[in-house]
Amino acid sequence: MARMTTPSPERRKSRAVRVGTVTVGGGRPVSVQSMTNTPTAAVAATVGQIHRLAEAGCQIVRVAVPDDDAAAALAEIKSEIALPLVADIHFRSDLALKAIAAGVDKVRLNPGNIRRREDVEAVVRAAGHAGIPIRIGVNSGSVRARTGEARAAEARVDLVELMVARTLEYVAWFESLDFREIVLSLKASSAMSTMAAYRQIAGRCDYPLHLGVTAAGPAEEGVIKSAVAIGGLLAEGIGDTIRVSLTGDPVAEVHVGRQILEAAGLREPAGVQILSCPTCGRCQVDLAALVEEARRRLGKMDVSLKVAVMGCVVNGPGEAAEADVGVAMAGETGMLFAGGELLRKVPAEQVIDALIDEVRRRSATRT
Amino acid sequence: MARMTTPSPERRKSRAVRVGTVTVGGGRPVSVQSMTNTPTAAVAATVGQIHRLAEAGCQIVRVAVPDDDAAAALAEIKSEIALPLVADIHFRSDLALKAIAAGVDKVRLNPGNIRRREDVEAVVRAAGHAGIPIRIGVNSGSVRARTGEARAAEARVDLVELMVARTLEYVAWFESLDFREIVLSLKASSAMSTMAAYRQIAGRCDYPLHLGVTAAGPAEEGVIKSAVAIGGLLAEGIGDTIRVSLTGDPVAEVHVGRQILEAAGLREPAGVQILSCPTCGRCQVDLAALVEEARRRLGKMDVSLKVAVMGCVVNGPGEAAEADVGVAMAGETGMLFAGGELLRKVPAEQVIDALIDEVRRRSATRT
Repeated sequence: MARMTTPSPERRKSRAVRVGTVTVGGGRPVSVQSMTNTPTAAVAATVGQIHRLAEAGCQIVRVAVPDDDAAAALAEIKSEIALPLVADIHFRSDLALKAIAAGVDKVRLNPGNIRRREDVEAVVRAAGHAGIPIRIGVNSGSVRARTGEARAAEARVDLVELMVARTLEYVAWFESLDFREIVLSLKASSAMSTMAAYRQIAGRCDYPLHLGVTAAGPAEEGVIKSAVAIGGLLAEGIGDTIRVSLTGDPVAEVHVGRQILEAAGLREPAGVQILSCPTCGRCQVDLAALVEEARRRLGKMDVSLKVAVMGCVVNGPGEAAEADVGVAMAGETGMLFAGGELLRKVPAEQVIDALIDEVRRRSATRT
Repeated sequence: MARMTTPSPERRKSRAVRVGTVTVGGGRPVSVQSMTNTPTAAVAATVGQIHRLAEAGCQIVRVAVPDDDAAAALAEIKSEIALPLVADIHFRSDLALKAIAAGVDKVRLNPGNIRRREDVEAVVRAAGHAGIPIRIGVNSGSVRARTGEARAAEARVDLVELMVARTLEYVAWFESLDFREIVLSLKASSAMSTMAAYRQIAGRCDYPLHLGVTAAGPAEEGVIKSAVAIGGLLAEGIGDTIRVSLTGDPVAEVHVGRQILEAAGLREPAGVQILSCPTCGRCQVDLAALVEEARRRLGKMDVSLKVAVMGCVVNGPGEAAEADVGVAMAGETGMLFAGGELLRKVPAEQVIDALIDEVRRRSATRT
């Protein structure tokens, strides 16, 4: 069957960093991360949420370690999950040391919010001994808070330059301690600042980059900001692992993350991918209802196929032929395509049945 | 107040093309388009939908003109709306001539699906006389259908190259007729092919570009694909007008389109923009509920402000200070910020009231 050659970006070359069983960078597939929002010390709730995240396709999971109770829970959490576990540390280096001792697979910290240099260095040495990486996470909020420039009325702060400069200082410092198991993130709350920061850092080191937008906001805005920034960077070849931040259930972050990877051509869609047109005055059937029915019935099938559901004969046959199986409506008649060939015409009310029969037939042939 | 300088891309230089009251290209703001999905000949329904689209922020509207009844309805539709009206034509050049005679502001067609060259040329001449532009819309589906390569088993079709080559042929042809009021679109159903096609054409002519992904699919997939492709291109400075294609009510297309422009730094958010964190084990309040309450109550206010609602003291104060007004929770206490300054601490249950009072106070000062 004819297939378009989907262009995929040339990926930025990055160093490979191992996070437990998952390698980040070094040309490996871009992984999807998330973060629990249960109290970490509530082990059962946290482990339960991690299992749900893993089931949704999360590949690396992070938990906040704000206090001793959270640190004390890490070993037990680690023993009950399969995903690589990342400890998120702020302010207290002693919690990072406890997390490393508990066997976490990575530590995420911002050296700028640990007061004493020797405390940061103790964490770097401990990570080195344990053979685990550190993500240096510089967020726009923390850079701003530390510089204090937020208070300078009318000051024009070039936040992106500040974030990049700060990150490179930390990198040089860690390297001076002979530590190179580093992942970097530079998240801002605007998509454009985030993109600018990652583009700049991408050209100035070879450490793998963890992409994300901080404080992306509620539901739809957060999804769109993240898709623009993360997807746009991936489309330029930048990024080794991603985390979509959405306020709410973190499982949604994983779904959106995977869809961003699919859109960026970095992941084969799991299951059936539906192409459908927006419909217009040309369409004489309730296409949204047909799409919804196709989606519902095909969603349960464990096959990887492209299925097109198109409302009219303008682009319909072309798109339908591009998909593995497709239907294009001509008035109230559906034209069923498979493998680029018109198979037959079927009345509208039988069109989804016919589509599903054909999907079933083709997936049976494949396996 | 300290403000980050949001990086905005250097825009590709494009020729200005006038579509009724809206100018596309030439450095003008990127406009948001949509397309009705009522039967065009049903004038009341079509006009009603156009009014709803305009209210949502749509700036140019397109209607399908598949038959004589639709063409006959255009003059009446045009007389009842304020938005520039675009006629979407396929196959029949006579319908394009009727649409132009009816006073539409632009014609969209794909010269490849009108059989005779002289028929296309008659439309180009008529548009020239009427002083209206033509969008040459080359979609992956139509290119594929025309080349017939879909049937060549195992053929590796470079769809993007085909789309670009075909578009440039049409452009040269129109130019040979001394017609230059041209807008171009090259929509594919994958985000990466779409981006590749627009990137290539962007470097090879100066006509304004109408961005979109064709057959983007149902709801969430469509939103993410469109945000990645359209947002990614805009972030590279490419694109003069956009249309998000989603299966369903076209009003959603306008909302998503506007949010993509906001994310790409090309549009000031209307109303209140909420920054919020994803929450983690550090957060001791139900932040999603606070965000939802803030969103609901602030959504009604006609002020353009950034408001941060952050769950903890890690990035909270930084992000909250970056916003015009913000609150960062420290345990069950909220720290209220405005203009980069900590104003006061308030208990969790009063935090949204305090936030809204402050927003109100600041918006009163502004006007």
